[in-house]
Amino acid sequence: MVLPLLTRIDHVGIACRDLRRAIDMYRETFGLEVVSLEVNEEQGVREAMMQVGAGQAGVGALGVGYVQLLEPLSADTPVGKFLARRGEGIHHVGYGVSDVSQALAAIAGTGVRLVDERPRHGSMGASIAFLHPADLGGVLTELVQSASA
Amino acid sequence: MVLPLLTRIDHVGIACRDLRRAIDMYRETFGLEVVSLEVNEEQGVREAMMQVGAGQAGVGALGVGYVQLLEPLSADTPVGKFLARRGEGIHHVGYGVSDVSQALAAIAGTGVRLVDERPRHGSMGASIAFLHPADLGGVLTELVQSASA
Repeated sequence: MVLPLLTRIDHVGIACRDLRRAIDMYRETFGLEVVSLEVNEEQGVREAMMQVGAGQAGVGALGVGYVQLLEPLSADTPVGKFLARRGEGIHHVGYGVSDVSQALAAIAGTGVRLVDERPRHGSMGASIAFLHPADLGGVLTELVQSASA
Repeated sequence: MVLPLLTRIDHVGIACRDLRRAIDMYRETFGLEVVSLEVNEEQGVREAMMQVGAGQAGVGALGVGYVQLLEPLSADTPVGKFLARRGEGIHHVGYGVSDVSQALAAIAGTGVRLVDERPRHGSMGASIAFLHPADLGGVLTELVQSASA
């Protein structure tokens, strides 16, 4: 890579059994608030984005990250299987990129396998793609080009 | 909580067996660079902080996060045991706070158990404290008051 490929830690994806309870926990413990609540049928999840870092003076969207809470729509989904195997906890990390297609091409060139050959629909209108954890030290890694990028 | 307690996603802590190889992987795949390399005897780790998001125009430290790579000093350490139990992968998430002692007091008041009753020494001179994953949906959660805060 010549330029920095990753612009920020966009979010931490957390698998939970009960989205409502998880939201309440993050609100009551840390004062986080939900900024988006969606069902993503393709990924088999009901999800909430809770904002960390509130667009502080001069920082704007670049200073903002999210706790992404993921509840599986059924046991037979990637997050459902993760819960059965490992229990609740951190599921993946998402990094911001300015152009997800360019980033995928660059990363594929390094030999890392892609879960998604082409970007797909993520939270809040973002274009996202997952990279294979087997080539990244066991870390399921997501690239996120936000809708406003 | 009245005010937002968490100011940013400070870092994602990743357990690895070979720090040098993990550093090379993040450099070669994503172009990240090491900004700090330390041994923390108390926590039983050799660690590298690799910066994500390069103090872009007008953003400064608030826009910066880190991949924190953790190699255990021995099998008989928390990260060593994590590797034996779960293999390489995401170990914890660290959030920025402006005052870690105040944050600990506020969080203890919500009933969440603290791993650290008092702040201790973290990466790059930060004051840090861990919260118990059993009370936070399986997520080992760290609070980070950076040295410059």
